[in-house]
Amino acid sequence: MSFKVTILGCGSATPTAQRNPTAQVVELHGRFFLIDCAEGTQMQLRRNKINFQHIDHVFISHLHGDHFFGLIGFISSMHLWGRIKPLHIYANEKLREIIELQLNSSDSLLRYDINWHTLNYDGKHKLYDDKTVEVFSFPLNHRIPTCGFLIQEKQKERNLIHSKIIQYDIPIDQINAIKQGSDLLLEDGTPVPNDEITTAPPSTRCYAFCSDTIYDENVVKYIKDATLLYHEATFMHNLLERAKETYHSTTIQAATIAQLANVQQLVIGHYSARYSDTLPLLEEARTVFANTQMAMDGRIFEI
Amino acid sequence: MSFKVTILGCGSATPTAQRNPTAQVVELHGRFFLIDCAEGTQMQLRRNKINFQHIDHVFISHLHGDHFFGLIGFISSMHLWGRIKPLHIYANEKLREIIELQLNSSDSLLRYDINWHTLNYDGKHKLYDDKTVEVFSFPLNHRIPTCGFLIQEKQKERNLIHSKIIQYDIPIDQINAIKQGSDLLLEDGTPVPNDEITTAPPSTRCYAFCSDTIYDENVVKYIKDATLLYHEATFMHNLLERAKETYHSTTIQAATIAQLANVQQLVIGHYSARYSDTLPLLEEARTVFANTQMAMDGRIFEI
Repeated sequence: MSFKVTILGCGSATPTAQRNPTAQVVELHGRFFLIDCAEGTQMQLRRNKINFQHIDHVFISHLHGDHFFGLIGFISSMHLWGRIKPLHIYANEKLREIIELQLNSSDSLLRYDINWHTLNYDGKHKLYDDKTVEVFSFPLNHRIPTCGFLIQEKQKERNLIHSKIIQYDIPIDQINAIKQGSDLLLEDGTPVPNDEITTAPPSTRCYAFCSDTIYDENVVKYIKDATLLYHEATFMHNLLERAKETYHSTTIQAATIAQLANVQQLVIGHYSARYSDTLPLLEEARTVFANTQMAMDGRIFEI
Repeated sequence: MSFKVTILGCGSATPTAQRNPTAQVVELHGRFFLIDCAEGTQMQLRRNKINFQHIDHVFISHLHGDHFFGLIGFISSMHLWGRIKPLHIYANEKLREIIELQLNSSDSLLRYDINWHTLNYDGKHKLYDDKTVEVFSFPLNHRIPTCGFLIQEKQKERNLIHSKIIQYDIPIDQINAIKQGSDLLLEDGTPVPNDEITTAPPSTRCYAFCSDTIYDENVVKYIKDATLLYHEATFMHNLLERAKETYHSTTIQAATIAQLANVQQLVIGHYSARYSDTLPLLEEARTVFANTQMAMDGRIFEI
């Protein structure tokens, strides 16, 4: 099933001619999650042909403008285009005040509800949960309270081997338990080990989003074994001191986190506006973690 | 001397593939005035190669989002790019609270001062004044308090005719008064009429901005004889009822105001997103006021 990330903006701080500031859409089994919402996100959604009425959940990592200045326009346009279903926003509690003040100032009464969910910064917290998908927040280490996000498939059921259903005439009332890993109990009480009658489920996939953060190995435990990690790499490593001062990461640091966390693939982004060519950032990250790709506006990463 | 309007956005309500919402830069004798600042204005300034650190005065007509959602990003980027000179913003007083709340939420302390000027809605008010330029606000008739703006050259001095200076040996201490329109007084007390020794100054130019407003002839007195009038034409005239309901104008209404005000040229804009082709709006306006042009993003109108 589809699981992909569309990069709407991969720049930091201010927009440049090539890059918008941070926003991404994660599509997973027909659900659309928006992560961060910089100025211009609604235009970027249109350019990337993503119907933004499909988005029901918005996660805002922190309240630096390059991660949320587009939210009020996004909310407002959803209203003008007739949205009535609720929108869930997961963010710092101050964001609600910012949005409501602007709506009130223009006498705008939305036709849909916004359900506000306050982020915590003291560990891993589940934000969203349904039959097949979970979303968690975890703390990053930045100048102001900041969260990363994990979007992951839930553990799937084991697959019953068709020939075994026939061979053992497995009763319907045992099937759910077997799919969850129980052994089969024959009528005489004899157990048949689960792994004789099932195969392992497909492995679950996980997307981890880390922007913005100083290099901090405390994050590794939250993103361990992710299928795809997006980690900010604002600077080349020769600007390590600048990265520390501003609580950002370098290419080498992003790649080191990817390595420590044993992720399958790394995508770097959140490049400083000083880099018009970002290929050197990619090349530098690859010296530490070979399976690295670079975010570009409009680029899609399949997970 | 240069006097021109660059359209950064000519759409209404929500951005479309062709149009950003309202923002314009007026350049007059080296001064850059920004009128309205919708989401994406900072990107539009860059696309139109206008260095936005040249802008010292920003006029926000009203607090509907399609006229101000880009202001916080514009302010923030000016800071990040090292601005230290003050910025003047003329707007509804609530805008200050909106901007300051967002700056405080991200722990941002600007390196430059913002001087806030509160708009009045009860007549014509001078907002800006220097040696050669004046800017005024005047009330429009919209769903929430809204102002239009006049940017005009000051009356220039009369031109002394060089041959008359020699013929009458005009004393230096009379020159300023003569340029202001006084007669020359010869040594024996005989007056020489001003129009014998001077020619009229070049006529002054005036730009009038009217967006958003319902059709209202009360506006005519404020924009009388403008060189260029920008007037919103959100709808074709067959949607007159919709225009009334939403406190907007039709093409025919914009053109009628231009005619009543005896302006030299009309530019229409603020088109509803329903019109992907805006040529029919232009053609309809021209049936009433022939010298009409249509705003398009990136288009420049010389005044």
